[in-house]
Amino acid sequence: MNSFKVGLIGLGNVGSRVWHNLLTHKELLTKKSGKTIEIKKIAVRSPQKALKVGVPQERLTTDWKEIVDDPDLDAVVELIGGIDVPYEIITQALQKGKDVVTANKALLAFHGHEIASLASKHKRRILFEASVAGGIPLLQAIQDGLVANRFLMISGIVNGTCNYILTEMTNGRMSYADALKKAKEMGYAEADEKLDVSGEDSAHKAAILCALSYRFWPKVGEIYTEGIESVDPFDIQYAGELGYVFKLLAIIKKHQGSKEVEIRVHPTLLKKDHILSSVSGSFNAVIIKGDIVGDQLFYGRGAGGDPTASAVLSDLVELARYPYVECAPRLFFADTESEYKVMPISEIVSRYYLRLNVVDKPGVLASIAEILGKKNIGISSVVQPEVSSFAQGVPLVIMVHDAKEKFFQEACLEISRLPFLKCKPIVYRVEDFHVQGE
Amino acid sequence: MNSFKVGLIGLGNVGSRVWHNLLTHKELLTKKSGKTIEIKKIAVRSPQKALKVGVPQERLTTDWKEIVDDPDLDAVVELIGGIDVPYEIITQALQKGKDVVTANKALLAFHGHEIASLASKHKRRILFEASVAGGIPLLQAIQDGLVANRFLMISGIVNGTCNYILTEMTNGRMSYADALKKAKEMGYAEADEKLDVSGEDSAHKAAILCALSYRFWPKVGEIYTEGIESVDPFDIQYAGELGYVFKLLAIIKKHQGSKEVEIRVHPTLLKKDHILSSVSGSFNAVIIKGDIVGDQLFYGRGAGGDPTASAVLSDLVELARYPYVECAPRLFFADTESEYKVMPISEIVSRYYLRLNVVDKPGVLASIAEILGKKNIGISSVVQPEVSSFAQGVPLVIMVHDAKEKFFQEACLEISRLPFLKCKPIVYRVEDFHVQGE
Repeated sequence: MNSFKVGLIGLGNVGSRVWHNLLTHKELLTKKSGKTIEIKKIAVRSPQKALKVGVPQERLTTDWKEIVDDPDLDAVVELIGGIDVPYEIITQALQKGKDVVTANKALLAFHGHEIASLASKHKRRILFEASVAGGIPLLQAIQDGLVANRFLMISGIVNGTCNYILTEMTNGRMSYADALKKAKEMGYAEADEKLDVSGEDSAHKAAILCALSYRFWPKVGEIYTEGIESVDPFDIQYAGELGYVFKLLAIIKKHQGSKEVEIRVHPTLLKKDHILSSVSGSFNAVIIKGDIVGDQLFYGRGAGGDPTASAVLSDLVELARYPYVECAPRLFFADTESEYKVMPISEIVSRYYLRLNVVDKPGVLASIAEILGKKNIGISSVVQPEVSSFAQGVPLVIMVHDAKEKFFQEACLEISRLPFLKCKPIVYRVEDFHVQGE
Repeated sequence: MNSFKVGLIGLGNVGSRVWHNLLTHKELLTKKSGKTIEIKKIAVRSPQKALKVGVPQERLTTDWKEIVDDPDLDAVVELIGGIDVPYEIITQALQKGKDVVTANKALLAFHGHEIASLASKHKRRILFEASVAGGIPLLQAIQDGLVANRFLMISGIVNGTCNYILTEMTNGRMSYADALKKAKEMGYAEADEKLDVSGEDSAHKAAILCALSYRFWPKVGEIYTEGIESVDPFDIQYAGELGYVFKLLAIIKKHQGSKEVEIRVHPTLLKKDHILSSVSGSFNAVIIKGDIVGDQLFYGRGAGGDPTASAVLSDLVELARYPYVECAPRLFFADTESEYKVMPISEIVSRYYLRLNVVDKPGVLASIAEILGKKNIGISSVVQPEVSSFAQGVPLVIMVHDAKEKFFQEACLEISRLPFLKCKPIVYRVEDFHVQGE
């Protein structure tokens, strides 16, 4: 039986579960891959912690270069996170003829195109199933199972931390701060939660999904990104009464005939009976709309040591199973010259939830309606909920029909200047996953 | 650019969409597979119909042997349905060195092991992504994306016809006959609906899922199979009031340490807030519980020309993309000597919904409770719904805690002999997807 020799860099939450599951599933993985997959060397920061995981001393090193330089290794698994060091690790590994597996979405979002080109140049493979939606074999579905389709839309919940916080805010009627605290206690949020709650992590994943489905890498800075930090429980509750649920979504769409791809991350209102609305807690779920296959949904755990290890191991089996094939086009997952580009957020069309805090006096609604009307923006419903106490004025919730973002934002700016406005308009997009020309 | 030459047998609903989408997505498929996939020859029963689909006369034949015998073809796609002729086609194609793609679940359920062995003997591949859950890349997920996992459970809705009928019976409060009629009008049921509504089609798919996940082919006759023909709207409505939804499920489970695999198809009560309960109409959805990755759900269209064609085309891309690899273990999708076997239905443990029609007089419940008690079967709730008119006695609905099927059926037999019973006890299993030792 041939052996497939792996060097592992990073033995944290994910790395230690890769090590563990590879041992406990050794027989199965050998049967499935036709080779014995062996972790020959592990680079760690602290050998003490590694010994506690049960790794034998002789396989440990504190210098990742030892792994990258080892001519005996077939593949390198990078699981340390961050960008600069992983960039060094991965580019050197590819140059030295090693296949690479990584879960590093930030690195791919910023350097994906360069790394893919490098892999292709050196006839090596880089696999990263674990980088988006953890254990869900989503990237494989896009690249293989749904390969015949043109993708009209890929959208969903790709950050379990945010989904957990929003679920707690919704079901437990908690404030953002309390829900975040609970998420940390439960291990669903990092000590530094910034990357998750700001929407950045979701934007990195959206970049990867965009590259795989439209064969071009958007610049991270071009992805419109809004986090969940300022979501107010009042809006969650009030949207709920109107039949909507708050979800942080990554949305990628391409309308028929357009060369521009919508790609954006923001808190979004979904109809309660939509299947994505029932995805709660730390779960992830992504809808893919293919032009032949129609709508599909993939659901599962998007983070955590074991689910992520499951994806890393499947990548290792793929590498061990199939020899490098010159023509295998999964490698070339981005074109050098793409025909597509990112659609500016001002150009998207969406429905909106608009909450205003106003002084309660006659004529207020008329003024607002006039501003929207001038911009040709249709109101689908207006409610002034009864509230016993509200710090600033009384709330007025307006649901708006499909409108171009640019015009809607112009209207909001104008509305914000009205004298009876007590604070800045609160705006959320409402999504129905429609794509033009579907 | 190399060409990958395909012979297509059958140009019905699916075949004609394979032909169509291959033409409309030619450039994309060439890019993704590295070869030009071309349908060189098509065998049909009626050339007249084929000409209407737009197939040029010179590619048509009415003799499938011409395709199987053509040394110039790389692969044969079998899409005619039935068992005997497809068996001939596929075995001959493999023997003559051709790769095979099929959507034929009945054939695989009855002859899967033999066909897999034949493919392996002749170093050929047989792919059949379209055979289960249509366009959902479920088989690929089991074989590749979740390859590192031991499967604890694979369960779901794999027949769109039954799900459509049950959804209509639930939401539209229709009788089975009316819902079936509507399904036929909408094109969701075949003229002869037997294979679908009897649960047989789901059982065939369960056999394939079992082979891929546990590497053994159960005999179709060993799969406990119950259809939806006798589901009464009263039970749907009453289960609804108790918080449950009716779904026809294929359930495959392996409890830890057991060498027996549960494999069964029957109408099942699910809690309304379970994600499978929100799968309505003709959609399919399957939950996979992997020991590393946890719960996943895959959702999409399980039938129809285009979704099925999407899966067939992805199989063709895989064949075109990768050369035959001696070691590629996806081929050997069943062991000759498996360590597993099917668990008899009498041995399963389940919760139950039991509806009795009884004469309304004192002591009735006591007698029933006594029989259940003697078998150590716990009652979780009893309700005697108020009904204005009921043909046979009054209904009594009893929800039962986890019990072994054998003991529960013995109790039911005893209950059915009670003098105040007005008709046979109505029994449905209630599923919570628990697996022992999870």
